[in-house]
Amino acid sequence: MAVGPAILPVLHPINGVRLGIASAGIKKPGRKDVVVLEIAEQATLAGVFTQNAFCAAPVIISKEHLRQGANRYLLINTGNANAGTGAQGMQDGYACCSALAEAVGVTREDILPFSTGVIGESLPVDKIVSALPAALANLNDNLWAEAASGIMTTDTRPKGACVQFSYEGQTITLTGISKGAGMIMPNMATMLGFAATDAVVDAELLQALLKEAADLTFNRITIDGDTSTNDSCMLIATGKSGVVISKENETLYRLFKDALHQVMLELSLAIVKDGEGATKLVTICVESAATQKEALATAYTVAHSPLVKTALFASDPNWGRILAAVGRAGIENLQLDNLQIYLDDVCIVEKGGRADSYTEAAGKKVMSQENILIKIILNRGDISETVWTTDLSVDYVTINADYRS
Amino acid sequence: MAVGPAILPVLHPINGVRLGIASAGIKKPGRKDVVVLEIAEQATLAGVFTQNAFCAAPVIISKEHLRQGANRYLLINTGNANAGTGAQGMQDGYACCSALAEAVGVTREDILPFSTGVIGESLPVDKIVSALPAALANLNDNLWAEAASGIMTTDTRPKGACVQFSYEGQTITLTGISKGAGMIMPNMATMLGFAATDAVVDAELLQALLKEAADLTFNRITIDGDTSTNDSCMLIATGKSGVVISKENETLYRLFKDALHQVMLELSLAIVKDGEGATKLVTICVESAATQKEALATAYTVAHSPLVKTALFASDPNWGRILAAVGRAGIENLQLDNLQIYLDDVCIVEKGGRADSYTEAAGKKVMSQENILIKIILNRGDISETVWTTDLSVDYVTINADYRS
Repeated sequence: MAVGPAILPVLHPINGVRLGIASAGIKKPGRKDVVVLEIAEQATLAGVFTQNAFCAAPVIISKEHLRQGANRYLLINTGNANAGTGAQGMQDGYACCSALAEAVGVTREDILPFSTGVIGESLPVDKIVSALPAALANLNDNLWAEAASGIMTTDTRPKGACVQFSYEGQTITLTGISKGAGMIMPNMATMLGFAATDAVVDAELLQALLKEAADLTFNRITIDGDTSTNDSCMLIATGKSGVVISKENETLYRLFKDALHQVMLELSLAIVKDGEGATKLVTICVESAATQKEALATAYTVAHSPLVKTALFASDPNWGRILAAVGRAGIENLQLDNLQIYLDDVCIVEKGGRADSYTEAAGKKVMSQENILIKIILNRGDISETVWTTDLSVDYVTINADYRS
Repeated sequence: MAVGPAILPVLHPINGVRLGIASAGIKKPGRKDVVVLEIAEQATLAGVFTQNAFCAAPVIISKEHLRQGANRYLLINTGNANAGTGAQGMQDGYACCSALAEAVGVTREDILPFSTGVIGESLPVDKIVSALPAALANLNDNLWAEAASGIMTTDTRPKGACVQFSYEGQTITLTGISKGAGMIMPNMATMLGFAATDAVVDAELLQALLKEAADLTFNRITIDGDTSTNDSCMLIATGKSGVVISKENETLYRLFKDALHQVMLELSLAIVKDGEGATKLVTICVESAATQKEALATAYTVAHSPLVKTALFASDPNWGRILAAVGRAGIENLQLDNLQIYLDDVCIVEKGGRADSYTEAAGKKVMSQENILIKIILNRGDISETVWTTDLSVDYVTINADYRS
């Protein structure tokens, strides 16, 4: 199941990025499961990684190499997460990097590895290394869509986004792909995102822009709060357009920032919509909170409530569940009388109880939609936050209970 | 579905407590839905209540009357939670108390009201008041089992516990009942517990004992973290045995404390075992944590992880899910290398990865049991904490999605 149509937009090439894809037979023979992403010299890179205390080996290595190297290649495999694999996992990750480095004539630190798939099984280094010649042989700048398929695990659809904008007669392109069926991959490790632009952005600014965009997109989606050990999101700026992004040129900076935000939002919402068993895309806006912390605590408590999520699945305007979730979000001195809750533009809670104007029919109508907005107005300050989530369906349980049996 | 046999133990009467039960027809005609619990004069009372910011009206009133009154009666209804009902809800709660007070010749503050059932609908005061004469007419000290049924909502079985112990030739009895199918009642408000003893315990000590016992029992069970607006747990000491519990008599104090803990534990585990859709009772022990906070954060993160819970449902020893949940529990500087995880006595994780001695068959055997222990040893200090939970089954979603449709 997934929400909305499975349309992959046109993914324009980024001058300075080439992609190669091959079959290593990691989990299924013949499946495209290795992607090599080649980055032009002089490009800048930025990365954000999982906050899980148990980073997978490829995350540890990528963070290390991102600090050390003049990074030229991303090496991505699906089918095995190389997570929970101890010292051997680190050796295996390094071995794959070294093999690719040798094949293309760079150093090991120039390679960033990414793995997604089953946790706790050894990375099949030989299979991956054997697939490298084929991947390098088909390096091409127009394979983003194929790469989007090549990094899938239990995803039901490839995910990509592309935004172009013009500035003084020049076109700047941002293209990205992502994978993950929520944060919630069964025994899988999970979210990967790769985006690139032909703009010139220095490394420090690129990292700041990625961090800010990820915080408002990838870090605001949740299916059930199960953060994986492998989550990684990379942003590459090849500089090939010659258009320089800097804070000095405010107009251009704003245009670029908005375009980046849009690409990242589309990539992350694609993950939510492909969430396991998902039938609804749910936007939770918390408005007029006193602090960001309480806004997010409220939004996530509602987003993670199994009772709210099953009500969403049932298209049931069961507003007491939303109210109860807000009430247990841990906000001090929260006054029920000041709280308002809306489903789209239907007010369900105000003045300490059900809104006078509320009718079950109006609530039911919103809850039956595929896209639902839950707006919670705390009336305590001027901070707003938005998170996105899905419903909790019978299919979610079936998928996650059946996965290894 | 529920875990284990549905056996209600013998619930011995408590001298000084009488119960009366009647049908008010709140939700279903003929259903016993009103319980009056009469408490002898000179008894002491203690109570612990929901931490949800949106307390239901009966919780607010009970807390108020507990401070003010010489409490003589508990008035409990099922079928309507009188929650999310604003100012009208408070009036309705007071009206029921006043009616009972008048009927028995005490003041309103001597009555503590408790409601459980649907949120957001007005309390049917007239129906409840009409049922009071019948409830008072059958007041009897041997109706604990009937009262356990009388406070049920979607519970599939009545819940009660009784412990007796002897001290210097005297028998002290503790009897209790509870209701709730987890914290997770669909649109219902939820957990109620009522226990009584014939020991003499002064009010301050009784409150401390109840708080301590509740923290280790009722406050350590979770189905999905959805705390209700109505959770209440009361402890009554009638004093009729004449046996005085105080810290001066350490032996007797310890005996009483242990008996109270046992009654509360049985009452709370009965709720978990009757959790919606539950097929497993899961005990999560976190050992050698540095602080209570990190022990509980770890235990609850595992207990609330939908991926862990669906693996439990599937009897799938999917240890990577447990590891990933521990990793996202927010513990600073957690070292994977020092961590050990056991399923019963089967070591699944040590030295940074899957234990060498681990076999899938051994893991599968434990996961197939109805009672499962997940032991997580952090090796950071000397604090241990235990929480209890259930699996997440297809039935859980079905029950909660179908409830109002």
